[in-house]
Amino acid sequence: MSFNIEKTDKKRVVIIGGGFGGLRLALDLVDSDYQVVLVDKNNYNQFQPLIYQVATSGLYPSSISFPFRKLFDKSKNIYFRMAELRGVYADKNMIQTSIGKIEYDYLVLAFGSRTNYFNNANIEHAAMPMKFVDESMGLRNALLSNFERSTTTSSQDEKESLLNVVIVGGGPSGVEVAGAIAEMKHYVLPKDYPDLDANMMNIFLVQASDRLLPAMSEKASKKSLKYLEKMGVNVMLNTHVNDYKDNKVILGNGQTINSKTFIWVCGVKVPTFSGIRPEQIGPGNRLLVDQYNKLLGSDNIFAIGDCALMQSDANFPKGHPQMAQPSIQQGALLAKNLKALLKDKPLKAFTYKDLGSMATIGKNKAVADIFGLKLTGPIAWMLWMLVHLRSILGVKNKLSVLMDWTWSYFTYDKSNRMILTAFTPQIMREREELERKSHWGDLDPNKNR
Amino acid sequence: MSFNIEKTDKKRVVIIGGGFGGLRLALDLVDSDYQVVLVDKNNYNQFQPLIYQVATSGLYPSSISFPFRKLFDKSKNIYFRMAELRGVYADKNMIQTSIGKIEYDYLVLAFGSRTNYFNNANIEHAAMPMKFVDESMGLRNALLSNFERSTTTSSQDEKESLLNVVIVGGGPSGVEVAGAIAEMKHYVLPKDYPDLDANMMNIFLVQASDRLLPAMSEKASKKSLKYLEKMGVNVMLNTHVNDYKDNKVILGNGQTINSKTFIWVCGVKVPTFSGIRPEQIGPGNRLLVDQYNKLLGSDNIFAIGDCALMQSDANFPKGHPQMAQPSIQQGALLAKNLKALLKDKPLKAFTYKDLGSMATIGKNKAVADIFGLKLTGPIAWMLWMLVHLRSILGVKNKLSVLMDWTWSYFTYDKSNRMILTAFTPQIMREREELERKSHWGDLDPNKNR
Repeated sequence: MSFNIEKTDKKRVVIIGGGFGGLRLALDLVDSDYQVVLVDKNNYNQFQPLIYQVATSGLYPSSISFPFRKLFDKSKNIYFRMAELRGVYADKNMIQTSIGKIEYDYLVLAFGSRTNYFNNANIEHAAMPMKFVDESMGLRNALLSNFERSTTTSSQDEKESLLNVVIVGGGPSGVEVAGAIAEMKHYVLPKDYPDLDANMMNIFLVQASDRLLPAMSEKASKKSLKYLEKMGVNVMLNTHVNDYKDNKVILGNGQTINSKTFIWVCGVKVPTFSGIRPEQIGPGNRLLVDQYNKLLGSDNIFAIGDCALMQSDANFPKGHPQMAQPSIQQGALLAKNLKALLKDKPLKAFTYKDLGSMATIGKNKAVADIFGLKLTGPIAWMLWMLVHLRSILGVKNKLSVLMDWTWSYFTYDKSNRMILTAFTPQIMREREELERKSHWGDLDPNKNR
Repeated sequence: MSFNIEKTDKKRVVIIGGGFGGLRLALDLVDSDYQVVLVDKNNYNQFQPLIYQVATSGLYPSSISFPFRKLFDKSKNIYFRMAELRGVYADKNMIQTSIGKIEYDYLVLAFGSRTNYFNNANIEHAAMPMKFVDESMGLRNALLSNFERSTTTSSQDEKESLLNVVIVGGGPSGVEVAGAIAEMKHYVLPKDYPDLDANMMNIFLVQASDRLLPAMSEKASKKSLKYLEKMGVNVMLNTHVNDYKDNKVILGNGQTINSKTFIWVCGVKVPTFSGIRPEQIGPGNRLLVDQYNKLLGSDNIFAIGDCALMQSDANFPKGHPQMAQPSIQQGALLAKNLKALLKDKPLKAFTYKDLGSMATIGKNKAVADIFGLKLTGPIAWMLWMLVHLRSILGVKNKLSVLMDWTWSYFTYDKSNRMILTAFTPQIMREREELERKSHWGDLDPNKNR
């Protein structure tokens, strides 16, 4: 017995991570002849494609999150445990987690990827990632706090650094968040901060390659560039970011941008865990798997989604893109294959079916490569909304997102612009202590500020 | 000029705090002949009567919050600054805040009250308050995390302490949160945690006096006690809490309750600031004011709401209750009086009009002393919902709350049970560091957990 889940006569599948792939697998194993233990460090699944809307005050964080326990409250063979993976003991069929050890018959690694700072400690220290709901709430708080502070600083240099936004990465996340922040600049800033010159706010989107959305069609790249430029975003193609020092983003050409709002969405890497052997790890730390998503050199460990690298799919010799669709499809097939294993039936090899991709830049402004078509404008935008609304978990969340979208369609408003965080008494006291020590707290009335 | 707001020929009113009183005053001074500076430490107003529903996963935090800047985005004479008061220099007509000094012609102190721990450091360290939105999010996270941890602990003693909930304070907040947690126990826990015995969860409501809701009618007290007992809450009247040690709440009679979920809603006190003279401070640190809410011994400083103590109102010789209604009424009258001052007209003295009070314990279970009637049951409950829905700021928030209420009416569900917090990269790294050091992280496969 480990951590209070009794072993039954059913074989146990332990799934690490309840993202797109892990969740699909767990859902497809409901009422199967496996005992399933789903392990995630959060108690909820998050819908990553809309995280940028949380970061820019467009949606409630709760609207794109769904508690795992609620998803499985009628499923007797699925157990959820909130925990983090620490290491794998393959020879003992056991993992170490933050809440203790767990034995498995089959282990499925679906822990996804993390933001890649390319080993630059300065950037990692200063940049704001936007991969998870909690990070997007942090980003929203930072964005709004910087607006507030910009109204009260007396230094022109600081004001500039508070209002300049630098987004690094021209993939879907970078393009979408750039568009959303541009909408804030045009529709929210002038109303909310009448005593602030909105023109002082400059938005930079820095992309290393020669086009935006490099995974999409040329048409999508061109159109998204056009949209963003029309919305006033400074798009810098063929530009690298080398470093971040003294509140300045340092570009490859030596140029600097003064900015305290420095958003980093330009790449991912897979975390490593003890117990995975070096020969099982490929480029980007991805776990090498065969056509059945089985970890090379293992009999009962699988890896799916972002953290897996399958080189056997003829059309994707360098592995599948690290996106929702391959993860979902791999999770679904693995569920079938695990069921087949119980019946000694042959397994089916994975081939990825590309369903297309899309990105939205603003109201009526989107690009979509889908059904063999290359769509842009209002049609692509409607399609984008439909596809995402359909994929959000839970009727109530769908309603809530639909309400927010309808509201902002007619009002041009982003209504969730509260600087909100969860405080325990401990955190609160620390914050008060810090503020008491801050240079503003000077109680001498004769000093200037 | 101070902190970027230019003095005009209009006199400047500085309002400290945008709660019920401060906000009413600011709203009533829109388009008046004053320049108004509203200062609050948050960028949003919070609707405190529903905070307990955020704490118990019933509502989104954003649904009961409203950004100040949005409220005043069409008001040219109202300025908002996110800052905290540090001290008052009455002789200089100036205050010190966390963002610098601000001069005023009239100063209105409306900074409300804070949770009172009655100088017990152990209790202050361990107890969870529930007065502000950020605290209620912290409480929600703690409640849900304790449920999660209770499924994985191997110690029966720890399980008990994680599942026992102790609420101290039998006023409206205590009664309402006790009812909401009892609903979680009955409707959410058995579904979400099938491998947990819901009977292990005990809810204690500890009240120092001999009845619940002492500010309401005897009938309301009796009925709310009956409701709570029917819902399985252990109500302990005439009981004091003396201390908190080793995860145990120590009662006045020496009895202890093993509990890590220790909610403290039994009293408030007013914070103190340098520059307020001792003779201006009354019982509970409340600021002594005359019948016009003018601070005693001052010409141009006013105090309204929780932080003010007016002893001149014939029916309330000990001051008004520290609730929303007196604050709102004082804010509204002060706006009129400030306008009268400009025209050298006589001021009007304040008298409090008691509009009644109500509390809800659960679905169809509420008590209301209103319109001279003492209502209970479904009618009181409907009334409670209508009154609160009406008072929530903003159409979209009303819709969102209505949706959540309708949803949970039919499903018995509390759907926002995500453990959500806002992370910056810095906080995230600290948390990871802490977890790495935790005793669970032992990577030796031969150790037991």
